[in-house]
Amino acid sequence: MSTHKIAVIAGDGIGNEVMPEGLRVMEAAARRFNIDLQFTTMAWANCDYYLEHGQMMPSDWFAQLKDFDAIYFGAVGWPDKVPDHISLWGSLLKFRREFDEYVNLRPVRLMPGVPCPLANKKPGDIDFYVVRENTEGEYSSVGGRMFEGTERETVLQESVFTRKGVDRILKYAFELAQSRPKKHLTSATKSNGIAISMPYWDERVEAMAPSFPDVHWDKYHIDILAARFVLSPERFDVVVASNLFGDILSDLGPACTGTIAIAPSANINPERTFPSVFEPVHGSAPDIYGQNIANPIGMIWSGAMMLDFLGNGDANYTAAHDAIVRAIEQVLEHGPRTPDMGGSASTTDVGMAVAELL
Amino acid sequence: MSTHKIAVIAGDGIGNEVMPEGLRVMEAAARRFNIDLQFTTMAWANCDYYLEHGQMMPSDWFAQLKDFDAIYFGAVGWPDKVPDHISLWGSLLKFRREFDEYVNLRPVRLMPGVPCPLANKKPGDIDFYVVRENTEGEYSSVGGRMFEGTERETVLQESVFTRKGVDRILKYAFELAQSRPKKHLTSATKSNGIAISMPYWDERVEAMAPSFPDVHWDKYHIDILAARFVLSPERFDVVVASNLFGDILSDLGPACTGTIAIAPSANINPERTFPSVFEPVHGSAPDIYGQNIANPIGMIWSGAMMLDFLGNGDANYTAAHDAIVRAIEQVLEHGPRTPDMGGSASTTDVGMAVAELL
Ligand SMILES: CC(C)[C@H](C(=O)O)[C@@H](O)C(=O)O
Ligand SMILES: CC(C)[C@H](C(=O)O)[C@@H](O)C(=O)O
Repeated sequence: MSTHKIAVIAGDGIGNEVMPEGLRVMEAAARRFNIDLQFTTMAWANCDYYLEHGQMMPSDWFAQLKDFDAIYFGAVGWPDKVPDHISLWGSLLKFRREFDEYVNLRPVRLMPGVPCPLANKKPGDIDFYVVRENTEGEYSSVGGRMFEGTERETVLQESVFTRKGVDRILKYAFELAQSRPKKHLTSATKSNGIAISMPYWDERVEAMAPSFPDVHWDKYHIDILAARFVLSPERFDVVVASNLFGDILSDLGPACTGTIAIAPSANINPERTFPSVFEPVHGSAPDIYGQNIANPIGMIWSGAMMLDFLGNGDANYTAAHDAIVRAIEQVLEHGPRTPDMGGSASTTDVGMAVAELL
Repeated sequence: MSTHKIAVIAGDGIGNEVMPEGLRVMEAAARRFNIDLQFTTMAWANCDYYLEHGQMMPSDWFAQLKDFDAIYFGAVGWPDKVPDHISLWGSLLKFRREFDEYVNLRPVRLMPGVPCPLANKKPGDIDFYVVRENTEGEYSSVGGRMFEGTERETVLQESVFTRKGVDRILKYAFELAQSRPKKHLTSATKSNGIAISMPYWDERVEAMAPSFPDVHWDKYHIDILAARFVLSPERFDVVVASNLFGDILSDLGPACTGTIAIAPSANINPERTFPSVFEPVHGSAPDIYGQNIANPIGMIWSGAMMLDFLGNGDANYTAAHDAIVRAIEQVLEHGPRTPDMGGSASTTDVGMAVAELL
């Protein structure tokens, strides 16, 4: 069995508190399922590093990371130290783009034991994926200012959509939908207001749909789609969206299932040319850092997705993934719970409880 | 007392069914409060007109409308007849931009008798405004395609933010927050991902805040803000947002309070140089058109906002607005109800019930 080389980047704030618990559970799973994981910790890609070096990462970060199989990533950002657009564009967003992790896969699932903010929903009712384009679209640093500092000041911000970029994420989403029992794909658009890029997105969906005759698909404008996440989340199966719309929907979805603290995500390079990044959806939460109360479940669940990805279809790895998710479900249902879930357990308590169940 | 000249544009689909009820209630309120409203119906700005004339409106639409005090507007769009970006950019979005209706004001309020999709909320818990920039930003038809039809196809979509455009909507929002008991303003941003326009938006908020020392303000990235609408909607008072973010939040907000069918909106030109447009948040819903089951309350509530605007501070008009909102509350609580609210009443029944209470 081959060794999987994993780079560990904790980042800022609670990234440093949830990462040890993620690693604890990964190690427990590796032992039980006889999987060979080799972790290498990187001390950079955080705001303190930036304050010292004037950049988020060493100049040879690409060379240092490119041969890893995966990057296990906590959370980056500490706005009082470094503006977010600098810290994020200097780390996470660089990985997504330069390692061509064009799929951001985010499960939205109502788990047992998690109080749902929506009335009358029970575990199982909500269970879908957001498939987010992760390299182009609205996330762009192309543009600029004119007449700066005057009354005429004008700021241009470019969104960039390419056929390659749009088609490959749609293909991934159609294939995922095809693999699921409901075979239902929803495309997020806003072609009634955003008059150039979004009609193009719609066109590409329509061009691809005939290749997947067994998938039934629909599209909604992002405004009403956000509303439907709240009003009828059980209708969704796979939702495909541009970078920005996917970002919004993949926070909104987990909020509708109770909390973004437990939501995982995978930034995937499906061709495996470069490492993929596995990170919780939540951020670095400087306001609660240092108390060891952050919920580590998003970090742990992201690790489960990492194992599944590393296995690439191997049943033993899928079993490891499923065992971790089941352990998470048990801890969510019976505790211990961190304060955000109404308990008084520490980050460590929760991580140890999940690890023990393995 | 002066005559208020109001242009009536029903538009497409259920716009044609809810408009008569809106007018019925406006006329009842006008009689009771002795307000002089003069309605002029325009038969254009709908997709059938487009199919006949190749454009949504006559070429002299601006001249025909510019001297009205307000436009009472149903809903436009019928995608099977005309693509949405053509029908909307040819009507509603033209009004917003060419009549410089730069404020889109949308109340989000949990009303009595409306089943709330969020658990454990009661009327009064949710009560805030979304103030949406309505003329620039992400809603743009600037951009284009290159390498069209090839594998290299690239689509550029420009967002345009001007100091004038950003500052005036922020000023409106700060003033609105200042006028309310909580004096709390939340700014929607995404400066960690959208690297040029959104940091600019943040900068302008920070530049303006010192002029409103009694308003406490915060900012959230749009992803987590959408999540908070679901998780803690009672925290909000006034939320200011760009065109796109405001669009999303002002559908999501009403969804969190039960239904977008009852949500009203005002597209305001505060200087009153040109007419303002009052329209429900919901769309033209071709799928339910023709059955007389559409909920007219969004249309009616928008009419109440129109009266308030026409009064420009006059207590009699404010009283008319409040009386309509109270009548709406009574009908929501005691019926009759349209099918979307769990009843079996018709659009007409509901309109008549509200009118009668006046
Ligand atoms: C119909 C559409 C163009 C419009 C918008 O996006 O502004 C609508 O959703 C709204 O919110 O008024
Ligand atoms: C931190 C931020 C740049 C990032 C994003 O917007 O992609 C985050 O919100 C996410 O969803 O991973």
